[in-house]
Amino acid sequence: MKRIGMLTSGGDCQALNAAMRGVVKSLIFSGEQIEIYGFLNGYQGLIYGNYRMLDVSDFSGILTRGGTILGSSRTPFKTIRQPDENGLDKVESMKHNYFKLNLDCLVILGGNGTHKTANLLREEGLNVITLPKTIDNDLWGTDMTFGFQSAVDIATNAIDCIHTTADSHSRVFIVEVMGHKVGFLTLNAGVASGADIILLPEIPYDIDKVVEAIDARKKRGSRFTIIAVAEGAISKEDAKLSKKEYKKKLKEATHPSVSYRLADEIYKKTGQEVRVTVPGHMQRGGGPCAYDRVFASRLGAEAGKLILQGKYGFMVGYKNREVVKVPLEEVAGKLKMVDPNSSIIKEAKMLGISFGD
Amino acid sequence: MKRIGMLTSGGDCQALNAAMRGVVKSLIFSGEQIEIYGFLNGYQGLIYGNYRMLDVSDFSGILTRGGTILGSSRTPFKTIRQPDENGLDKVESMKHNYFKLNLDCLVILGGNGTHKTANLLREEGLNVITLPKTIDNDLWGTDMTFGFQSAVDIATNAIDCIHTTADSHSRVFIVEVMGHKVGFLTLNAGVASGADIILLPEIPYDIDKVVEAIDARKKRGSRFTIIAVAEGAISKEDAKLSKKEYKKKLKEATHPSVSYRLADEIYKKTGQEVRVTVPGHMQRGGGPCAYDRVFASRLGAEAGKLILQGKYGFMVGYKNREVVKVPLEEVAGKLKMVDPNSSIIKEAKMLGISFGD
Amino acid sequence: MKRIGMLTSGGDCQALNAAMRGVVKSLIFSGEQIEIYGFLNGYQGLIYGNYRMLDVSDFSGILTRGGTILGSSRTPFKTIRQPDENGLDKVESMKHNYFKLNLDCLVILGGNGTHKTANLLREEGLNVITLPKTIDNDLWGTDMTFGFQSAVDIATNAIDCIHTTADSHSRVFIVEVMGHKVGFLTLNAGVASGADIILLPEIPYDIDKVVEAIDARKKRGSRFTIIAVAEGAISKEDAKLSKKEYKKKLKEATHPSVSYRLADEIYKKTGQEVRVTVPGHMQRGGGPCAYDRVFASRLGAEAGKLILQGKYGFMVGYKNREVVKVPLEEVAGKLKMVDPNSSIIKEAKMLGISFGD
Amino acid sequence: MKRIGMLTSGGDCQALNAAMRGVVKSLIFSGEQIEIYGFLNGYQGLIYGNYRMLDVSDFSGILTRGGTILGSSRTPFKTIRQPDENGLDKVESMKHNYFKLNLDCLVILGGNGTHKTANLLREEGLNVITLPKTIDNDLWGTDMTFGFQSAVDIATNAIDCIHTTADSHSRVFIVEVMGHKVGFLTLNAGVASGADIILLPEIPYDIDKVVEAIDARKKRGSRFTIIAVAEGAISKEDAKLSKKEYKKKLKEATHPSVSYRLADEIYKKTGQEVRVTVPGHMQRGGGPCAYDRVFASRLGAEAGKLILQGKYGFMVGYKNREVVKVPLEEVAGKLKMVDPNSSIIKEAKMLGISFGD
Repeated sequence: MKRIGMLTSGGDCQALNAAMRGVVKSLIFSGEQIEIYGFLNGYQGLIYGNYRMLDVSDFSGILTRGGTILGSSRTPFKTIRQPDENGLDKVESMKHNYFKLNLDCLVILGGNGTHKTANLLREEGLNVITLPKTIDNDLWGTDMTFGFQSAVDIATNAIDCIHTTADSHSRVFIVEVMGHKVGFLTLNAGVASGADIILLPEIPYDIDKVVEAIDARKKRGSRFTIIAVAEGAISKEDAKLSKKEYKKKLKEATHPSVSYRLADEIYKKTGQEVRVTVPGHMQRGGGPCAYDRVFASRLGAEAGKLILQGKYGFMVGYKNREVVKVPLEEVAGKLKMVDPNSSIIKEAKMLGISFGD
Repeated sequence: MKRIGMLTSGGDCQALNAAMRGVVKSLIFSGEQIEIYGFLNGYQGLIYGNYRMLDVSDFSGILTRGGTILGSSRTPFKTIRQPDENGLDKVESMKHNYFKLNLDCLVILGGNGTHKTANLLREEGLNVITLPKTIDNDLWGTDMTFGFQSAVDIATNAIDCIHTTADSHSRVFIVEVMGHKVGFLTLNAGVASGADIILLPEIPYDIDKVVEAIDARKKRGSRFTIIAVAEGAISKEDAKLSKKEYKKKLKEATHPSVSYRLADEIYKKTGQEVRVTVPGHMQRGGGPCAYDRVFASRLGAEAGKLILQGKYGFMVGYKNREVVKVPLEEVAGKLKMVDPNSSIIKEAKMLGISFGD
Repeated sequence: MKRIGMLTSGGDCQALNAAMRGVVKSLIFSGEQIEIYGFLNGYQGLIYGNYRMLDVSDFSGILTRGGTILGSSRTPFKTIRQPDENGLDKVESMKHNYFKLNLDCLVILGGNGTHKTANLLREEGLNVITLPKTIDNDLWGTDMTFGFQSAVDIATNAIDCIHTTADSHSRVFIVEVMGHKVGFLTLNAGVASGADIILLPEIPYDIDKVVEAIDARKKRGSRFTIIAVAEGAISKEDAKLSKKEYKKKLKEATHPSVSYRLADEIYKKTGQEVRVTVPGHMQRGGGPCAYDRVFASRLGAEAGKLILQGKYGFMVGYKNREVVKVPLEEVAGKLKMVDPNSSIIKEAKMLGISFGD
Repeated sequence: MKRIGMLTSGGDCQALNAAMRGVVKSLIFSGEQIEIYGFLNGYQGLIYGNYRMLDVSDFSGILTRGGTILGSSRTPFKTIRQPDENGLDKVESMKHNYFKLNLDCLVILGGNGTHKTANLLREEGLNVITLPKTIDNDLWGTDMTFGFQSAVDIATNAIDCIHTTADSHSRVFIVEVMGHKVGFLTLNAGVASGADIILLPEIPYDIDKVVEAIDARKKRGSRFTIIAVAEGAISKEDAKLSKKEYKKKLKEATHPSVSYRLADEIYKKTGQEVRVTVPGHMQRGGGPCAYDRVFASRLGAEAGKLILQGKYGFMVGYKNREVVKVPLEEVAGKLKMVDPNSSIIKEAKMLGISFGD
């Protein structure tokens, strides 16, 4: 008999339900007796003892459904050691609820922040298994995260739509893709949709190089230019600022968003009309793509296996096309970023894509 | 033998290519000899004599393709009588090019602005046939325009994506749908995607009613509210301002866009987190949906028939499921708007949707 | 206080859930007290008293979902007056269950067969409201049925996929579209996807005309031909047979499906390779398109209104863009078919499409 | 200056155009002078000297387009050494055309058969670079082929559609997925869409185990069962036959297709209604998915690099997330198959999926 707590934390994404279904199906089909406690709205549910019992019927038909049946919330790691507004010790409360329910382990689905807290709970003596969920694919220790490929599909589709309209008019189009610190999503959506310029947080851009790339296209007879910009793209000069200085600069900017500021600059330097599109939260929504469904189901199944074996303290990740277990302490607090010298960047440049560097 | 000029003007949309293919196929399969002059980038091509000869192979494979193979541009009707920067009389130049090429007629695809200029050319003695293209479905004299249903699909998909993510978090989500003056697109996408509140230019909203609707949902246990807002949605008090006053107010606003201002107000009044999504130009892009392809092909075919019969001065429209011809002078300058007392509005209200009125 | 029974009968299709959600939402938001009895698996549930109580939460989130939450089954009208295998009188049993539950009315969603039985129940004294569901759009008394446009989207997408592969190879491709008696689906999907030949039950084809159309394409330099065939397409000579003779001929045929027989004939007459694709039940599946969601929601809302007004014995239909009520006795047993002389057929021919006639 | 011949051979698939665009873009942006000879319709074009000169504009806008702009054909390796019907030596003719045009190399896109012929040309002294195209992902020497993920998306969508309709009715549904020898496509689409039973060529099935799995579902209260069957799925007893005996048995069968025979058997053994869907060539069609566009573009870019370096005789493949070059002699004639003991199969079984073994 196994008693398992489960929660989804942080920004939601596609295939969370698929992954949870995978865990539960693999436990149930193992023949083991199980009880599943679904904590609602992320760590909040664990802190305040807010849960509901789940059975296999709760997981029927959710393979293809976006969002998370458990709800989610952001519970910042930064303040996890601080008492809540009523003076409650959040970490102690989570431990209390865990032990009171006599849980064998917690299955936690989340991204970077979530993993820091998960690792803290492990250090505090709880049995924890995590699953790597994020549209950013920025989790250290795994080649891939679920949500990523689905978000690539949506961002790609957004740029595809812009492509047909750009082709009809003579303009520069900027599409802002999600990703504050890491550019995998923008990079893949940009290459997939034939963007002409791709600007990533990891490769600070030179506005003059960007303008050069636009001009080069004009010279080759192209009427339009499409720029895929990550939310966290940054200019070379801003990259030299301290974090504090940069934050201050952003606050004083006419637009907090990089795309609108970039649009202004390009217009000033080229005189060309610029249009901005921000698909925003759409990129987290909708049903998971086939790739993510297979991927999340596989990870979920292997998480179930680890639970049956009583192997805790791991993130279930993916390395060289195999599902692997990665010690949580190796994952927590580390970020996987786009390497400016990686082969995909070189290949993108070979295709004529400018990174503004 | 027929010599036909063709151009697409204004913001592009889906099914422009499908409509042009319809015209050309119906002319060619009639057995008549034809020559087609495709003017590039809207009226600009006609003004400056910029065209290319088109044959049937140019229209092969474009039924499903978004944008327009002829390019487009906005040539404001307001300034059409003013000389260009080199002193060229634009209207005279269009007439000159028309008669120089010895054209039998012009086929013009466009929306409201385009139709005003098309009607002016008719008054100036040119033979004109128009086709109603706009994602806004705001053209007078026709039940439907092509581009509309395709844009509904995209805006609906955007709200669908937001729906799954809204369901996981406890928030108010605003999706800004295209439509400055007319709300058909927002209304249809809102009903199709199960939006809780729909705000249209034609029905000025009371912010307190909007907040009331959000609260009512909370009381019924719903964690989130989705608001579909037309770009041109307006509050009851702003609707009382003169056009000039309103423009001034918009200029001084922190955000020019209604959705961001609305988000601020809702946050102030409810304390709930609000997120804004702006699919923007995506709504004009991508390939046409099946409905628009059939519809645009049918209109195109009937336009070809009118040309063969030498019947000019008409927009090819759609009334009660039949393709009809509507005199251009009846169409030009008139706007079709959502009637606040129409049955679809009443039905939407019966479904529990709030219009903030 | 209203007690309402609800059931979905016949082959399922998209937007059944959307329509039921519309009925229930409009009843609930009217402020009236209501109880909803959902009979499971069509008339079977009514016959055998198999139902579950539904509340508004059952209808939450189902607007976009395909299938029917109530299940469906085919209960042939032909045998409705015959006792079941245990000697049970089916009609009496339905009446019994209706009166035992003290229902105010039955809401029945279905196609042609379903409407015959619904009308019979009306004649037997039950209060009945029906909603027109079918991917065939063949219900008399309404311009449109829900499911139709969603099925057009899927069949169109199937032919689109074939188009790209046909373009690469030199072949004839046949796509078999659903529709045994009526060709609206094939006609619309065929025009939408640029099929070269469209064969419908309503327009018997001459195989020599089909071959002629293929040859004409070859002469014009096209490498491939795409034929959209309705399941019930029929040759001119077969159309002369009696129903009985035709059934016999079909039974003895190498292939029961028209597409495979047609493929054989074309291969024999032209020597060209022919490939057949049968999307089949896919056409009933998946989520409803935006158009169907709006449409079904509107019909559902108006059905709710009729119930509140106590107006029974009607199908809620659609005429000239307005929702209308049509007496059931006018609908039952009649089929709406493609008129070979309708303008859409003429327009399709103007586009160069052959109907093999 | 480089003179490059290019051709696409075998069944077409998604991302062929994307891959060719990648090659050409990477060559052009390298600054090298290039001439590209596009041979039409696969090896046929090379044999008969049928080609057209391609420039960069031919590759504009084709990233997202399905099919191949060069056309394709099947030229069986088995008969490549036999003269054609006019006595022409095909291999000599290909060599003749290659040397007459003074080509530096041939870029060949294709699957297994194509690679055998490509390797033969290499042995005959031609410089050859190949790119792995196939929806089957069965090419030895590469983790992935382009076309595969796009086909998974389509097959998954087909089963998704069936899922909604299956849910409404009480039936067994069989979906036949492409793959005569290799089951990767069926396996991935089956897991992605939540199929209950998956039958692959690599894992011969026992019909009694299949029936057992259907019955087990019924006992758990499921109304329907979905079976994803590869075209080449085979029963345990048929797997014992010699190739010749099996071919003979197939010829004599009532249905050549495994799904229809399986349907008959299941109906006989369970009495349950069974429906068959065959998406067929749809799986090769439509535009490439985002994953395939990125993947094919990367391979294309690296192929361009090899050409610039004068490194010939390789297939450009993918290993452990990096693009690699694989000697053609290692690839030709080998098939990559699903390993019944691989972790994905084990994980699928942990999810409760039956493989009928």
